[in-house]
Amino acid sequence: MKIFETNSTPNGRRVRMFLAEKGIDMEYVQVDIVGGENISPEFLAKNPGGRIPVLELDNGSYISETVSICRYFEELDPANTPLMGSNPEEKARIDMWQRLVEFNLMMNVGFCFRNVTGYFKDRETPVKEWGEVCGEQAMKFYDVLEHQLSQNEFIAGDSFSIADITAICAIDFARVMKLNPGEQHSNIQRWRDAVSARPSASA
Amino acid sequence: MKIFETNSTPNGRRVRMFLAEKGIDMEYVQVDIVGGENISPEFLAKNPGGRIPVLELDNGSYISETVSICRYFEELDPANTPLMGSNPEEKARIDMWQRLVEFNLMMNVGFCFRNVTGYFKDRETPVKEWGEVCGEQAMKFYDVLEHQLSQNEFIAGDSFSIADITAICAIDFARVMKLNPGEQHSNIQRWRDAVSARPSASA
Repeated sequence: MKIFETNSTPNGRRVRMFLAEKGIDMEYVQVDIVGGENISPEFLAKNPGGRIPVLELDNGSYISETVSICRYFEELDPANTPLMGSNPEEKARIDMWQRLVEFNLMMNVGFCFRNVTGYFKDRETPVKEWGEVCGEQAMKFYDVLEHQLSQNEFIAGDSFSIADITAICAIDFARVMKLNPGEQHSNIQRWRDAVSARPSASA
Repeated sequence: MKIFETNSTPNGRRVRMFLAEKGIDMEYVQVDIVGGENISPEFLAKNPGGRIPVLELDNGSYISETVSICRYFEELDPANTPLMGSNPEEKARIDMWQRLVEFNLMMNVGFCFRNVTGYFKDRETPVKEWGEVCGEQAMKFYDVLEHQLSQNEFIAGDSFSIADITAICAIDFARVMKLNPGEQHSNIQRWRDAVSARPSASA
């Protein structure tokens, strides 16, 4: 098994952090996304979406999508450090928070970055005004996250989960666009210090 | 248990279709999203994201996010008509295709609708140019889907899954914006006829 990824990207980091929490060793193959290696015919055969990371299984098939790769390892050995829940309600709640953070923070920060900077303008049409709208939406979501973290140690409840991984990777990446939590978000800061101190945070 | 939803929306239909496939009866409570009921304080207490559908559990807690609601019922009784896979690789592959369809088709169609028509302009800033970019992206994804369906009966392989539900709900909704598959997409048409004939399609 190996994972094709780009070390500097938030989605690459999400998978590395997930596997580090579970203590799973992995071979990582770097993909040059700025040079367009991910939209080459060879790579599109692995993942028609043209995105990293991509997991290559020993049987030769490929799994793309960050969360789906994580799900594969979670299902392979559910008792090893569960990060996606252990019963139906917990699984649904963690999935819900993972998605709320992914859509409202990670995706908005990503759209802001790509549309405001035009980072991938060789392959997509950046719309600056949309990027600015998304930046505002990301900032608004910090209030939702602050409220949740004022009542819970971690984002989806009492235990560290994939929702925390998505959130720390999104927030750390958001610095690039200066979309940072403010002083009023003291619970986000408390949570961020704790999550950043985990060994997996530097995976 | 009950589900707060809006009958005319693609996300409401996704959950109804999923539960119909499993033969699960449910109480559905209609939410007036055009009138803004979903962004009222009462509704935001159920779902801070302000989106439908939302599942109310008998213990008084709430699960939002279409896929997370589906996951709850899948995990509650995994042997009853599995729609999210039965082993780690199948679960990851179905999750991957569900996400590929959700991000590249459902989300692009939704962004196109909201940003081109300004349907929710009382509560968000529509950016028409972005809506047009998303419409083009949705159309491009039909080629990916056509290729996949030229090699598989259903989107994630041999069996009907949640990926097919996301896709049929996205494609049927895409008609509103005239983002339809073309004559060159004969496998999508073959698949669409088959999926539309299932009793759950009219749930």
